[in-house]
Amino acid sequence: MLRFLTAGESHGKCLVGILEGMPAGLKIEEAEINRQLTLRQKGYGRGGRMKIEKDKVEILSGLRKGKTIGSPIALLIKNRDFKIDTSPSITCPRPGHADLAGGLKYNTKDMRDVLERASARETAIRVAIGAVCRALLRQFGIEITAHVTSIGGVCIQIKRISFNQIRQKADKSPLSCMDKAAEAEMLAEIDRAKKAGDSLGGTLEVIAVGVPAGLGSCAHWERRLDTMLTQGLMSIPAIKGVEIGTGFLSSSLRGSQVQDAIFYTKADGFFRKSNHAGGLEGGITNGEALLLRCAMKPIATLGEPLVSVDIRTKCPQKAAVERADICAVPAASVVAGAVVAFSLAEACLEKFGGDSLAETKRNYQGYLKQVKTF
Amino acid sequence: MLRFLTAGESHGKCLVGILEGMPAGLKIEEAEINRQLTLRQKGYGRGGRMKIEKDKVEILSGLRKGKTIGSPIALLIKNRDFKIDTSPSITCPRPGHADLAGGLKYNTKDMRDVLERASARETAIRVAIGAVCRALLRQFGIEITAHVTSIGGVCIQIKRISFNQIRQKADKSPLSCMDKAAEAEMLAEIDRAKKAGDSLGGTLEVIAVGVPAGLGSCAHWERRLDTMLTQGLMSIPAIKGVEIGTGFLSSSLRGSQVQDAIFYTKADGFFRKSNHAGGLEGGITNGEALLLRCAMKPIATLGEPLVSVDIRTKCPQKAAVERADICAVPAASVVAGAVVAFSLAEACLEKFGGDSLAETKRNYQGYLKQVKTF
Amino acid sequence: MLRFLTAGESHGKCLVGILEGMPAGLKIEEAEINRQLTLRQKGYGRGGRMKIEKDKVEILSGLRKGKTIGSPIALLIKNRDFKIDTSPSITCPRPGHADLAGGLKYNTKDMRDVLERASARETAIRVAIGAVCRALLRQFGIEITAHVTSIGGVCIQIKRISFNQIRQKADKSPLSCMDKAAEAEMLAEIDRAKKAGDSLGGTLEVIAVGVPAGLGSCAHWERRLDTMLTQGLMSIPAIKGVEIGTGFLSSSLRGSQVQDAIFYTKADGFFRKSNHAGGLEGGITNGEALLLRCAMKPIATLGEPLVSVDIRTKCPQKAAVERADICAVPAASVVAGAVVAFSLAEACLEKFGGDSLAETKRNYQGYLKQVKTF
Amino acid sequence: MLRFLTAGESHGKCLVGILEGMPAGLKIEEAEINRQLTLRQKGYGRGGRMKIEKDKVEILSGLRKGKTIGSPIALLIKNRDFKIDTSPSITCPRPGHADLAGGLKYNTKDMRDVLERASARETAIRVAIGAVCRALLRQFGIEITAHVTSIGGVCIQIKRISFNQIRQKADKSPLSCMDKAAEAEMLAEIDRAKKAGDSLGGTLEVIAVGVPAGLGSCAHWERRLDTMLTQGLMSIPAIKGVEIGTGFLSSSLRGSQVQDAIFYTKADGFFRKSNHAGGLEGGITNGEALLLRCAMKPIATLGEPLVSVDIRTKCPQKAAVERADICAVPAASVVAGAVVAFSLAEACLEKFGGDSLAETKRNYQGYLKQVKTF
Repeated sequence: MLRFLTAGESHGKCLVGILEGMPAGLKIEEAEINRQLTLRQKGYGRGGRMKIEKDKVEILSGLRKGKTIGSPIALLIKNRDFKIDTSPSITCPRPGHADLAGGLKYNTKDMRDVLERASARETAIRVAIGAVCRALLRQFGIEITAHVTSIGGVCIQIKRISFNQIRQKADKSPLSCMDKAAEAEMLAEIDRAKKAGDSLGGTLEVIAVGVPAGLGSCAHWERRLDTMLTQGLMSIPAIKGVEIGTGFLSSSLRGSQVQDAIFYTKADGFFRKSNHAGGLEGGITNGEALLLRCAMKPIATLGEPLVSVDIRTKCPQKAAVERADICAVPAASVVAGAVVAFSLAEACLEKFGGDSLAETKRNYQGYLKQVKTF
Repeated sequence: MLRFLTAGESHGKCLVGILEGMPAGLKIEEAEINRQLTLRQKGYGRGGRMKIEKDKVEILSGLRKGKTIGSPIALLIKNRDFKIDTSPSITCPRPGHADLAGGLKYNTKDMRDVLERASARETAIRVAIGAVCRALLRQFGIEITAHVTSIGGVCIQIKRISFNQIRQKADKSPLSCMDKAAEAEMLAEIDRAKKAGDSLGGTLEVIAVGVPAGLGSCAHWERRLDTMLTQGLMSIPAIKGVEIGTGFLSSSLRGSQVQDAIFYTKADGFFRKSNHAGGLEGGITNGEALLLRCAMKPIATLGEPLVSVDIRTKCPQKAAVERADICAVPAASVVAGAVVAFSLAEACLEKFGGDSLAETKRNYQGYLKQVKTF
Repeated sequence: MLRFLTAGESHGKCLVGILEGMPAGLKIEEAEINRQLTLRQKGYGRGGRMKIEKDKVEILSGLRKGKTIGSPIALLIKNRDFKIDTSPSITCPRPGHADLAGGLKYNTKDMRDVLERASARETAIRVAIGAVCRALLRQFGIEITAHVTSIGGVCIQIKRISFNQIRQKADKSPLSCMDKAAEAEMLAEIDRAKKAGDSLGGTLEVIAVGVPAGLGSCAHWERRLDTMLTQGLMSIPAIKGVEIGTGFLSSSLRGSQVQDAIFYTKADGFFRKSNHAGGLEGGITNGEALLLRCAMKPIATLGEPLVSVDIRTKCPQKAAVERADICAVPAASVVAGAVVAFSLAEACLEKFGGDSLAETKRNYQGYLKQVKTF
Repeated sequence: MLRFLTAGESHGKCLVGILEGMPAGLKIEEAEINRQLTLRQKGYGRGGRMKIEKDKVEILSGLRKGKTIGSPIALLIKNRDFKIDTSPSITCPRPGHADLAGGLKYNTKDMRDVLERASARETAIRVAIGAVCRALLRQFGIEITAHVTSIGGVCIQIKRISFNQIRQKADKSPLSCMDKAAEAEMLAEIDRAKKAGDSLGGTLEVIAVGVPAGLGSCAHWERRLDTMLTQGLMSIPAIKGVEIGTGFLSSSLRGSQVQDAIFYTKADGFFRKSNHAGGLEGGITNGEALLLRCAMKPIATLGEPLVSVDIRTKCPQKAAVERADICAVPAASVVAGAVVAFSLAEACLEKFGGDSLAETKRNYQGYLKQVKTF
């Protein structure tokens, strides 16, 4: 059973994560984790914080001589901007943030107590955990990428291209956007929003390839892989929608247009020519690429703040202003890739078992052969 | 901690559920559960199965003299159409169902082994469990309704009306649709699809009112209420998308348009004039109504089946035909209400604790007072 | 992940259990489950209830044509003595039972609300679940037996004999006791206690053989197999102590006397000549037999009841008398075997993974070969 | 829901723990945690490691201005003796340790990969987590202490004295032993064992006072508090037995001798004059002190090592020698107190709910009043 806990506040000492349940014998490199952390920090339209933090992970435990040994893996990312105890109180909650709801819940009138943990800064450690999971998935030939499909209503126009092309283009783009023309418009839209003291959201897509058929389960609701993936994606701050494959659009189509007919050749085994299902049927992977899309609402902190209420005086007042991004969709796409990596690693270990990489891979290969000769 | 397990196959003896963690002293009526079961079975465009099954729950345990006693509540719904051992084999997987993915996973060439559990029949017992949870929520003044917002691309046009109006109109409609004009078009569209041997999907909305601010958490990703709710909703068969509040649309708007400004009056406390957030900020309820929307793909079993492959011969063949609905969005809306009821009950018990209704309510009222005088 | 929930009260309609996570393709026979249920009901010194109940399981779901299909397995045992709603109130709590503690917790003055679920009757369904787990374990060559080692201070005197001998002798004994001489004394002691309106406890031992090295984990506290096994054993009503291998005695010995030296031969691989560790080192099975012992306190309901208090009047009064056994150690030994079966099945599936028996066994055999050639 | 994960190896950089689910507003002091860490390190008969490590905790997250804010609490203890990557291989497994079982499980011939995590060093971070839980319990008037009741067969002879007396005497004793005369004999026995190149075990007792009636549950096996407590205690390395109240001894007594008669006075409410049950009836606290006892086997690493096998050559060879204690029962008693603290905190939060200390305490006081006027 793979699981993790995270800790850490936005302006606390650091972020920490413990990942428990990885098999022994897997090589993990800090450089590979840091590459993902850097991807998360890029993005045109990010705020001043991103200039302060240059996230680097420190692996505190779980490795010996660079490889996992079956024990929990603890990861730490230092916050350069450590000032939680000295930062000013927040008494005017920001609409769209956890401030007010959390202040009521945790019974605190200084809502900095709430926002410090509710901050999306926490996703940095999830990206680090996801990078460890990616290392495991790579052993099974599973690769994940994520890219931005719209910002502020500006959508990409490119038809589907290959996984590797998407990854290359997105990795090079400051907005993780594979469509150069759309990217230019998005950049302009970010500038306009910034000028207006406003913020933008957008949509992103996560794609996973090399996923074998048979992960997840139709036997119980919370073991369905679509459920597990959605749970992770919706937990990313500011995500307000998740869809799989053709998603919301499929609700207006007919069954004959939406289901993916089944074909077989000796070389390829069972396959589809379309992928409306996004690789998931009945909560189980069907051997096609996973396609997941998220909607991110605009950043809630605004340069020109909305109307709010001072919770001490109960009088109307403009909401507090914390340093913030204009648009964080590119960053969210990296986080989305990371949470998908975790859920896929969880599903693989649930199915294949094993305490060492050799054992888990042996079980995996036995299963592949079973599928091949089905 | 509230939790449940379900069991049962589509043509097995029965469906069973065990709900664990309800406080003692709560009155539960079979009639109330049956009312929800009947709602789930209605709907123009349902298949022959719905004429066979008239679901009635039997409460097997957990009550004494009509009230909970703190022990697990076991529920049973008999299948009239019990024939799992004698039903014919399925060797030609239906695209869009778990058939092929499950056959590979569970290593069975008779895919009836898979579809019996993967069937949406399982949702009947979740509706029963949800009905028990509704009884608890009613003690806290929380009410939930769900209605159909589109079928096959035909969308409702009515502007937002009150919760009670929506509930009344939806309960009376054969399609759980509050818009009479749209309903007529939907019915016609279902007839057309049926004639074409095709099927339809749609969208639905769940609304919960009376939800206090402070349920859920921003402290850890899987304790966020948006995460918990989405997890439940995405686990409903054929649901391919979930959104909260303004959802996907918010991704194309600006922050100033999407965030809900905060107001205060002595009588009402903190409140909003808009509800783009759908009642959830930072994973926590903010005191506004919960608004959740799901996209359901069209039923995967078609009168005119798609191309598939016989898994024994590996030759192309039309997919198997099981008795099926043309459109099940109204049923799915009832299921969606039930899963939301479970997650809200779980969140309430997590926050308010307590082993008896008296204790849980006392804690709840203490909290309400705390919020009132915040 | 293997898991289960149970429901049902002592005089409710029935007991129900749902076992979730078994691989597909495993043959399950009601007769085999019933054999375990009958073993649980035997035992000299049982009360009148055992004459009323002749437990038979009904498998409600999870099988098709006698084999598992990967879906949850629901089991039901009817109570012949169904009268929960009409049984008289209990207002004078019985010392040693959950009555008073539960009355306060669940806020009920009729403590029948509490004792109905707190009753050891619940263990019948755990025996049924354990019997299903035994069927899985048999596929891995793991066998479990349990026997009574003392009753009321009368201890068995036989030196260790083989697993099969213990099982045969215990199965034939009305007290699950492998020592004929001790058994005679135990029977006499039970008669004496009965005459005195008193009750007896005792000790029991569970033995599991064929357990491969490497189940459990040293990596995290609650994944240790000693922890998992003890958790199950201590949850059996009236069990007040659990020990592994030489257990409490080992606390007074020296290290050189207690640790089990390691040997190796080509034929046998690594092995020990002693088994003070009871088959568990560092929370992991070491390939030797598992040895677990439990202490059961005397039955709390007495023919001559102890002093108690009427909770309405707060005046002293003799405790309520429910129909009860004089001694239930033989029954508890069957329950103990069942809970060990569950934990071992859980540990096997965690380590070997797999969704079908073929897959799980293939993974298991791959591991055995790895150990053989280590 | 309170939960935690730990990470860290014996000679890794550090130990880390994340505790999730504490309410906001609780004052936590590093000094108080360090006091428990120091208690764990004392003890006559400890090895050289204890001279190297002077454990100090660093709170990495979860506090603001010295108080909890509802977010996860991350704790770190640095290892001064950090050398995991350079320490020599272990190829000759030590009987009694996880070495061989873990080597087979994790498929490693260098068993240092296993022992680094299997080491009891891990318990330091559990002591830190327990210290945080104690801070919460203190708010409910719950206090926990633990003391050594025997070492190497030398038992304390003092009759039961008050909780405070036990705590004072144990805290002052180098062996956490409240009986001066027994302590002298224990010290001599430790010297003798050391001289013989041997090691010792012993028994310890944990006592918790101020525990309200009604924690835990009789409704489901793994929610019983006796189950939860035993799970924690048995997970402490080298613990081979756990008993509650009169425990194993009660198995040889009659019911009339073992059950605790119930009394009532207006001032005290319900109470007992004896406490054979150890404060737990039917898995629920009954308002009396919790009494839990553990048996610890002797330290497995011996100055004069036992026979083992070199796993490369398969030839007999003396087991590896790692620096080790002669006797660690006093340390284990501190760990035992810590795991009990965690389980009690978990049970309190499950019952009383709440997100802030004010809310949790309000709920607690409401319940106390309910019990008082029952």
